[in-house]
Amino acid sequence: MRIGERHYRSIWLSEDGWAVEIIDQTRLPHDFATIRLESPDDVERAIREMEVRGAPLIGATGAYGLSLAARGDPSTEALERAYKALLATRPTAVNLRWALDHMMAVLIQLPPEQRAEAAYRHAADICDEDVAINESIGRHGLSLLENLWQAKGASGRLDVLTHCNAGWLATVDWGTALAPIYKAHDAGIPVHVWADETRPRNQGASLTAWELGQHGVPHTVIVDNAGGHLMQRGLVDICITGTDRTSRHGDVCNKIGTYLKALAAWDNNVPFYVALPGPTIDWTIADGIAEIPIEERDPAEVTRVTGRTREGHVVSVDITPAGATAANPSFDVTPARLITGFITERGVCEASEAGLARLFPDHG
Amino acid sequence: MRIGERHYRSIWLSEDGWAVEIIDQTRLPHDFATIRLESPDDVERAIREMEVRGAPLIGATGAYGLSLAARGDPSTEALERAYKALLATRPTAVNLRWALDHMMAVLIQLPPEQRAEAAYRHAADICDEDVAINESIGRHGLSLLENLWQAKGASGRLDVLTHCNAGWLATVDWGTALAPIYKAHDAGIPVHVWADETRPRNQGASLTAWELGQHGVPHTVIVDNAGGHLMQRGLVDICITGTDRTSRHGDVCNKIGTYLKALAAWDNNVPFYVALPGPTIDWTIADGIAEIPIEERDPAEVTRVTGRTREGHVVSVDITPAGATAANPSFDVTPARLITGFITERGVCEASEAGLARLFPDHG
Repeated sequence: MRIGERHYRSIWLSEDGWAVEIIDQTRLPHDFATIRLESPDDVERAIREMEVRGAPLIGATGAYGLSLAARGDPSTEALERAYKALLATRPTAVNLRWALDHMMAVLIQLPPEQRAEAAYRHAADICDEDVAINESIGRHGLSLLENLWQAKGASGRLDVLTHCNAGWLATVDWGTALAPIYKAHDAGIPVHVWADETRPRNQGASLTAWELGQHGVPHTVIVDNAGGHLMQRGLVDICITGTDRTSRHGDVCNKIGTYLKALAAWDNNVPFYVALPGPTIDWTIADGIAEIPIEERDPAEVTRVTGRTREGHVVSVDITPAGATAANPSFDVTPARLITGFITERGVCEASEAGLARLFPDHG
Repeated sequence: MRIGERHYRSIWLSEDGWAVEIIDQTRLPHDFATIRLESPDDVERAIREMEVRGAPLIGATGAYGLSLAARGDPSTEALERAYKALLATRPTAVNLRWALDHMMAVLIQLPPEQRAEAAYRHAADICDEDVAINESIGRHGLSLLENLWQAKGASGRLDVLTHCNAGWLATVDWGTALAPIYKAHDAGIPVHVWADETRPRNQGASLTAWELGQHGVPHTVIVDNAGGHLMQRGLVDICITGTDRTSRHGDVCNKIGTYLKALAAWDNNVPFYVALPGPTIDWTIADGIAEIPIEERDPAEVTRVTGRTREGHVVSVDITPAGATAANPSFDVTPARLITGFITERGVCEASEAGLARLFPDHG
């Protein structure tokens, strides 16, 4: 990822070789600051407070959480304690479970004195694998966008609507939903992004707008209410979102509001694609609506908005009457029937059990 | 409308009998303050800055704008100048045109010296008529809610989702979409309202939550993204929204995002009703999507959010990166096919040309 003139990943090892550094995403887009994580507790807090967020990045960060745990106390008991605490930070994120399970499977079978070194090595592998997956999603998505662009007569611009932030900042690098957009922009396709602001945490208005801006991709922030209208008026060529967890039937659990955009895309014949890294598929779940628990977060995320005053101070303000009650379901499930297709690291497929099984025959 | 222990309308004549007073809705829910309007310019500003908003209240305020104009200069030329300026303040609002046309038709045929008095009389009639219409919408909507409540076995609570503010504050009194809710609450039905916050101006989080709170109606503020999920999980019994303009075919132009909620209601078999005062029907328009122009408002409404700091100061903060571009279409059109029915002052009807013509045979 490009920030100014420098290339970053969203998580990296400190120069000392053992602590982990991240970008504090709660301070974007107003401040760019990094945080040093030195313990599993630091990692838990970083995930819980959403200093890191995005399913793939949460997985990678969790893996480093176990590395820090193994460095401190490599006993099986200590690792299992860290595993449980890390898993509890974000119940919806299947990548987190995937990464933690993967790490534990490797570590438990080693003698304790070898666990710390192995943990760091495997956490680094998880990061590198995420980058490779996303780069591959970008390539497959680019073909899709190239075809759309040609079908449009290669004139005007190609309008992509996205929800939340499934970009660089949600992954180790590249992003999932935004990877095809970066590839298309770099390939000279005049892509323009409608960025849903994504209430309540405004990841679209803050993170997506910020990272697209850093890379120079033209974009326009809209409220979450606007997408249906834009599709009705023919101003959206394709929707691409990420996913936090996908059932084997192809139901997608993603940021709250994704389902509404999929309905609008369906109603207006706009293709609706989900960028789907293999590790985000939960093969144990069939019916996403019936089986995926939805995380309820703090109602204060709804009633209180953080931003920058004219004087440059970052402050939080209440937008509701004093004492108002709010609810904050953080994800919703988009049924497979509304999804045109998945863009995976192994190619594009139909949003169905058959489609997923074709590309991932080793699972399922 | 009840504010504390006192009964208010949202617009009223000052004690001096000629100036007009309104509640400054831009300061709610943080401060309750009234504004005195003494000239057509004051009225234009109040409408443009959304100190008053809501289709019926804009119409009533516009009528008093012509009254103030007639008091200052009753010549036909001056009235026509005021008419044009007032009409330009909010291009989407059909009630505004309706009220101004109605006033002009009456005034122009009178000798100038009689115009001011007649203008005030007719503006008062428009206000009283609005109150009567909304009270009647409330009664017809109450029957609907009573039936739903019985069909639900009269147990638990009756969950109504609404978008934006179509309450007291959007009208002279009672509200349109909220009138049935107040009636149901007063009749002892345990109604609970999911209030969409309604970005970008947050009329739901601020105004709807505030006025429901003043009346004691249980409610929960949600982000606009959440409604689809709630309907999917069976947590919404009915949606009721207002409308700024309705085509004779039954297409509804209302606050941006209404269309997305109608799609979700359709997909989940949740009844979706629109509270529709007769004057909001635009009989000259058939196809709402093709024919209704959509107002684009200041992008700063998207990028900047106003609220109350912990210390009690009302401040505005930017939520996007410095220099970010935003778009702000303020309304969308919900096609009649997605609407279960209209709740009008003359009863409930199907959202279709036939349904409207049955209740309003004198128009059309």
